[in-house]
Amino acid sequence: MDRTGEAAADGIGEPQSVVATYRYRVRTGADVKHEAQRLADLQSTGTWVELAGETEAIRERHAARVIDTWQAPSDELDVPDGPDARSWDIRIAYPTHNIGAQIPLLLATVYGECASWRDLKLIDLELPDSFVGGFEGPRFGVAGVRGLVGATDRPLLITIVKPAIGLTPKESADVFYQAAIGGSDAVKDDEKLVSHPWSHYLDRIREHERAARMAYEETGHRTLYFVNITDRPDRLVANAHRAIEAGASALMVDFLTVGISTLSMLADDPGVSVPIMAHLAFAGAIYGSAWSGLSSHLVLGTLPRLAGADVVIYPSPGGTLPFSRLQARRLTGALTEPLHSLRRSLPVAGGGMHAGVVPRIVEDLGIDWAMAAGGAVHGHPMGVAAGARAIRQAIDASLRGEPLAEAAKAHPELAAALRKWPEEETRVEATAR
Amino acid sequence: MDRTGEAAADGIGEPQSVVATYRYRVRTGADVKHEAQRLADLQSTGTWVELAGETEAIRERHAARVIDTWQAPSDELDVPDGPDARSWDIRIAYPTHNIGAQIPLLLATVYGECASWRDLKLIDLELPDSFVGGFEGPRFGVAGVRGLVGATDRPLLITIVKPAIGLTPKESADVFYQAAIGGSDAVKDDEKLVSHPWSHYLDRIREHERAARMAYEETGHRTLYFVNITDRPDRLVANAHRAIEAGASALMVDFLTVGISTLSMLADDPGVSVPIMAHLAFAGAIYGSAWSGLSSHLVLGTLPRLAGADVVIYPSPGGTLPFSRLQARRLTGALTEPLHSLRRSLPVAGGGMHAGVVPRIVEDLGIDWAMAAGGAVHGHPMGVAAGARAIRQAIDASLRGEPLAEAAKAHPELAAALRKWPEEETRVEATAR
Repeated sequence: MDRTGEAAADGIGEPQSVVATYRYRVRTGADVKHEAQRLADLQSTGTWVELAGETEAIRERHAARVIDTWQAPSDELDVPDGPDARSWDIRIAYPTHNIGAQIPLLLATVYGECASWRDLKLIDLELPDSFVGGFEGPRFGVAGVRGLVGATDRPLLITIVKPAIGLTPKESADVFYQAAIGGSDAVKDDEKLVSHPWSHYLDRIREHERAARMAYEETGHRTLYFVNITDRPDRLVANAHRAIEAGASALMVDFLTVGISTLSMLADDPGVSVPIMAHLAFAGAIYGSAWSGLSSHLVLGTLPRLAGADVVIYPSPGGTLPFSRLQARRLTGALTEPLHSLRRSLPVAGGGMHAGVVPRIVEDLGIDWAMAAGGAVHGHPMGVAAGARAIRQAIDASLRGEPLAEAAKAHPELAAALRKWPEEETRVEATAR
Repeated sequence: MDRTGEAAADGIGEPQSVVATYRYRVRTGADVKHEAQRLADLQSTGTWVELAGETEAIRERHAARVIDTWQAPSDELDVPDGPDARSWDIRIAYPTHNIGAQIPLLLATVYGECASWRDLKLIDLELPDSFVGGFEGPRFGVAGVRGLVGATDRPLLITIVKPAIGLTPKESADVFYQAAIGGSDAVKDDEKLVSHPWSHYLDRIREHERAARMAYEETGHRTLYFVNITDRPDRLVANAHRAIEAGASALMVDFLTVGISTLSMLADDPGVSVPIMAHLAFAGAIYGSAWSGLSSHLVLGTLPRLAGADVVIYPSPGGTLPFSRLQARRLTGALTEPLHSLRRSLPVAGGGMHAGVVPRIVEDLGIDWAMAAGGAVHGHPMGVAAGARAIRQAIDASLRGEPLAEAAKAHPELAAALRKWPEEETRVEATAR
């Protein structure tokens, strides 16, 4: 196996390339090197036939190059290869100048037409400094968001307002206030709540920010409000400006349903002076298959960070959505590990989260993450404030290294939460295949 | 099986619902009605626990409703059910007022968090008039595009400039001219070509529109130029305005990489007075799996039409991309069958198209489609103009009901094309699994 290309792909010899890694399942005995070359050609200067106009000069300057192909590690395959198929990993280097500094063309180049090939998934992207340097990334990032809420040394708690739809702004402000005095660092809208006749986002901002101020006077702790301004890109930007004018402390966007580069546009807008949360809605449509689409750490890691998300919600293991610890580690790594000079995005564990899951996430991620909790706060037997407190208690105990069962003896809220939702109960397998 | 919900879903009794059909694979013996209810709750007012705040009044107004569940027809399954799994189809009605008139929230509602469920695919959407009425749809549509090129009674030919990357505007204008005198109704950029140091889109517009005028003087036939203006939404809109100012006759967008609602914003812009083509780049990332994502007729049919695409490229059977005739029929149906008062979008068969495929598409679609051809035009042994002519000859012969082999006797261009690319050769299976 020729590994001479490795150094180049790592950015040493060839800083001007975007390197894409694909997993490709082909018939046993197929010529995978030929297939890899066909892929590189299709996604750069070539097409399915030889072209007279595809000169050496054009190929020299613009053709993508196969760095390497190797048989995929069998322990990484969701579906093992049968006798008829073999899975290969293929690395291809694309000249960065084919793309420029925009996400849509990045996607069209590395996974445009070939997205329609059978059994070809984009599993990784290495972006050179020359590409990443064209993006501002998160404006606040982990440190910025921590600064706004005044919590530097622990995971954060973000409460999701529930029920998701139907509350008036005054009603949801009551919920907000309870969540805030319970110790939530932020409160967020549901991904399905935007601006509606029964709850205009500007009314929510006014009511919720008032609830935040009331709670602050009582507790001395600030609570951000991530208001969901999702809409068509032009209206979304208008919403953002009006939201900030109305006193919004933070914004939330269903970034995959509006387009990743819509998030990028929003984050780069000089008028947007508050943190932005990118929500996972629709993400599974792109990462959910082992044999098509993009890996989850690209969809919910690399790409939203590049586009400037300060905070990204992902489906955490231990909740209601199927997601492995390996997926979560790669995803949070993509949000927080060095990437040119981009700030780190704050990973937010979501999807059926509750106090009992906290110790395992602390073990995996340390302190730089947040929990997004809805049902576990609102469905807590002692009420919303107690629901938030239970999670904060679980966080504090986990950082001390104290088992939750121990901590629960001194904390009735945590005790009640653990009775209702036992620690690290696996609930996904029971309900979904 | 209770089918009483059918009438409602068809819009008779319940015009205010968006009805989503999911295919869900669960363990044999699982309670699918319970799962369906859980899905309806999660995607509307509920979450994974019971909520005190989820009142009857809120549920009455906002809860989604399971219309029906039935075992999926086994002949529709790409992967047959084994002994451990059963595939079910689930129909759920969402109150339209939960959504309003925007595509991002439509997606977050029908396939937001549940996109991260395992083995759950969104296979159909029925949109009530009350929802569709919030959208303008295509401004030109099939009839409008036909009017611009002056061809009312036959399939159209759209030539893709190749090589995809690297030509200067003068060089690609030469290609354009050849394609135009060969009978192309339009010429389009590759999906990977936008604005680059070696080919600014405004320069391309000037050079290509000049080539179009030269060809018109010679042949009396107009040729549109779909210039690819893909970029971040704000820059894309700016590109559109500058393009039209520079004399662009048509626009092209990689609509899935910029976001479907970015296309919607563009199409609704009063300054955009030319047809818009939506390209399939990235589509496979969303439709490619049998067990996650959205069906291809939603991704490349219903949604781009709703967003206002006049012309939509899809992967056609008989080319280089795996796509079945059933998929193609559903997709072209979604573009052209009645949908409230929206104009019809023109389906464009793409992906390794050549003259030999024409008869089969005429058989399937009649006259209201276009062929997007790149390699078959540029790789034709007699040159670009002959490559275009060969396809036009194949179109004319097919409409007369004449076999291509017969027509080739009088048309050397068609004869050469068929020698190089035999009629209806299946090339996908040979190269991709």
